Amino acid sequence: MSDSLDQLTAKLLDSYAEVGGINHQEGVNLPDKQTVEALTRQLLHLLFPGFFTKNNLSGDLFEKATRTLLEEVCGNLEREVVKSLEYAPPPGLKVCDYSETAREKTCQLMQCLPRIRETLSTDVQAALDGDPAAASMEEIILAYPGLEAIAVQRVAHELHQLGVALIPRMMTEWAHARTGIDIHPGARIGSSFFIDHGTGVVIGETCVIGNQVKIYHGVTLGARSTSGGQQLRHAKRHPTIEDQVTIYPGATILGGETVIGRGSTIGGNVFLLHSVPERSLVYYEEGAVLVKSKSELGRVSVDEVWADSYVI
Amino acid sequence: MSDSLDQLTAKLLDSYAEVGGINHQEGVNLPDKQTVEALTRQLLHLLFPGFFTKNNLSGDLFEKATRTLLEEVCGNLEREVVKSLEYAPPPGLKVCDYSETAREKTCQLMQCLPRIRETLSTDVQAALDGDPAAASMEEIILAYPGLEAIAVQRVAHELHQLGVALIPRMMTEWAHARTGIDIHPGARIGSSFFIDHGTGVVIGETCVIGNQVKIYHGVTLGARSTSGGQQLRHAKRHPTIEDQVTIYPGATILGGETVIGRGSTIGGNVFLLHSVPERSLVYYEEGAVLVKSKSELGRVSVDEVWADSYVI
Amino acid sequence: MSDSLDQLTAKLLDSYAEVGGINHQEGVNLPDKQTVEALTRQLLHLLFPGFFTKNNLSGDLFEKATRTLLEEVCGNLEREVVKSLEYAPPPGLKVCDYSETAREKTCQLMQCLPRIRETLSTDVQAALDGDPAAASMEEIILAYPGLEAIAVQRVAHELHQLGVALIPRMMTEWAHARTGIDIHPGARIGSSFFIDHGTGVVIGETCVIGNQVKIYHGVTLGARSTSGGQQLRHAKRHPTIEDQVTIYPGATILGGETVIGRGSTIGGNVFLLHSVPERSLVYYEEGAVLVKSKSELGRVSVDEVWADSYVI
Repeated sequence: MSDSLDQLTAKLLDSYAEVGGINHQEGVNLPDKQTVEALTRQLLHLLFPGFFTKNNLSGDLFEKATRTLLEEVCGNLEREVVKSLEYAPPPGLKVCDYSETAREKTCQLMQCLPRIRETLSTDVQAALDGDPAAASMEEIILAYPGLEAIAVQRVAHELHQLGVALIPRMMTEWAHARTGIDIHPGARIGSSFFIDHGTGVVIGETCVIGNQVKIYHGVTLGARSTSGGQQLRHAKRHPTIEDQVTIYPGATILGGETVIGRGSTIGGNVFLLHSVPERSLVYYEEGAVLVKSKSELGRVSVDEVWADSYVI
Repeated sequence: MSDSLDQLTAKLLDSYAEVGGINHQEGVNLPDKQTVEALTRQLLHLLFPGFFTKNNLSGDLFEKATRTLLEEVCGNLEREVVKSLEYAPPPGLKVCDYSETAREKTCQLMQCLPRIRETLSTDVQAALDGDPAAASMEEIILAYPGLEAIAVQRVAHELHQLGVALIPRMMTEWAHARTGIDIHPGARIGSSFFIDHGTGVVIGETCVIGNQVKIYHGVTLGARSTSGGQQLRHAKRHPTIEDQVTIYPGATILGGETVIGRGSTIGGNVFLLHSVPERSLVYYEEGAVLVKSKSELGRVSVDEVWADSYVI
Repeated sequence: MSDSLDQLTAKLLDSYAEVGGINHQEGVNLPDKQTVEALTRQLLHLLFPGFFTKNNLSGDLFEKATRTLLEEVCGNLEREVVKSLEYAPPPGLKVCDYSETAREKTCQLMQCLPRIRETLSTDVQAALDGDPAAASMEEIILAYPGLEAIAVQRVAHELHQLGVALIPRMMTEWAHARTGIDIHPGARIGSSFFIDHGTGVVIGETCVIGNQVKIYHGVTLGARSTSGGQQLRHAKRHPTIEDQVTIYPGATILGGETVIGRGSTIGGNVFLLHSVPERSLVYYEEGAVLVKSKSELGRVSVDEVWADSYVI
């Protein structure tokens, strides 16, 4: 085996040398996936103090623990932001200033945390108001994937606004992996936002979402066409959802010029490519679904009947 | 940085003092997320002995290992149930009796395990019967997310019936994060239940599901409207699915009075808000989908054609 | 509690003895879930060198690290493949030859890695070309779930072709849990394949997919009916997708004889059970979705209007 191990290693190293674009053994050090994930968890601890720790602390001990955690987060984030700057050097910034710039951006993010917490408290309340199955605010914070996804996105969005590369998307993809909810760090989302169940939700980079919006699982707020590829990179490609809109499961709304007017309701599985005015109600027309008795259709197996009759 | 760390800490502590509802640094100790997740994994080990351990044991050693695991699970669960009682104190129960009550509820759950195992063995068989891609029972237990989700829900459901707060939902949300299958602990589900693929499945709190039901990914069994919020908390809001029903991918069935009659088949992507009788076949009508040649439509890019022609 | 622990243990052991099919405390040792997951992570490291490690290495150190990782992967995989052979003994193979056979199959998989890397580099390029939100190849490798899912499937597919039981499916289900993308190891997939967002994608065992195919989240390439269960085990049950096809979110394409002709575009939420010729455009017909003003519908709550008006 030893010989063949040498051969296999040689073949792999040849492949690393030949195939471009998917090697990163040389060059600048990229932000580390595990570190970014640990950082994201720690940021959630800072946002919801006491919720994800085994033992409660109070008074002085709690203050000390908060300071220690904050110090650790700042140190780790600063190191990763330096890597992000090395990877995508901002024009005009000298390499010797990366460390200082990373420290500043880290500090700026930390200063946003109280404001993010205020918005998140409106999100928790919106979940409690919007879901009869929610027993308490505590249950929502401990168990609702929608809240985790929006909490991570609100932090990632600030980093994205600060022009930090790679890390914001790594944060939201960590949340995507855990919740099935894919919100791009670029999306601008108002207060009292509630995503119920959440699996399969996609919210694109240039989406703008107002206040008191409620979205169910499987909802896509996407681009109409991406065949322009990188040419479309800075265009508004995703819809605008105004205040107090509810979008039911599986609905798909596409296009950068599509505006869903304030107070509208979009029915489940609706596919929408254009704007609708305020207080619109969008749904499939009557008769789109038929109900027939299998007995009338003759004596064949349930699945065969279904498959055969489903002519399109 | 040290100075600014003090300032950042002070700002955060102010925010903790000011913004209500999302702080838990004081007050009772909540069930711990990591402990509940470890417990859920251990319960899966007890339900499917030998499947998730590195080395097989037999005879005395196996018996001893089972007893040790059971002891650990009981100890951990009891501690978490005490926290749950402290968080949501049952009326009339004295604090000094919480420990005893937690022990009793833990013991009651453990006594359910053999019965849950019997039901799970019907679920494994249903998966083998229902999926030609399933090579063996072992593959289903080792690799099928649908089985993991229903196993966790069947345990969580018993805890939910015992009136334990928070922990059951934390268990099912752990499974939701891993499988994309969101089954509320309150749902009542019969034997021989098979969820294939599973991502995006949502089964609401007051659902009642019969025996030999088969559900594909993306199926929602949900509430018609949740605008009543907490007022609807104890109403039956989710459908009843009778025995031997098959529901194809992406179908949405809503409403507490909706009953899907025995032996019915619901087609993919169907959106259904009312009851259907026994042996119904529900599907979209002919002509709902058109097929046209792009060549006939003129020489434009594939995506543009699609987007332009899709007028709604 | 000690007494009742003995009783609970005894009851569980009785249940283990009685309920068949979901016990594995005796019998052959199955591949270990955690080991297979660690192996899959290590294989991703070999495929994308330097992307998932904290510090970059170069020159000799990098070569040495590659050889060490390769050696570890080979050792671990060989051990798990032996278990797989014990579990599903190939006809005519003597037990004393399992170890040698496992070594050969492991070696064969490793020899595929350079070819898999070539294909993956086309997948990364396809993602960059197909998604305006993608900032760079690095972002795609570090953060795109679709790439992770296809990378794991391409490795698992080779193991599946080598006739190794259980392990390939355990690998793809690990990716499914992380990404919400469920691709069976049996599926044959061409180059330049791009899955965007991905949550809810299902690609069945006997699917054949050409080159330059682009698929969005929620797309199902499935079987028409599985009521034949294990009898259908070796039939072609899933569709063929020819080159340069784009399939928009939520579309469902079913059936082993269904062929989507080269260059076709399938619209979002389309449900398709038959073949379409080259360069087809498939979408819902006009008028399938209505837009009405809530004001016209009278003064009731937004959700009530929606629910009541949605008659099917």
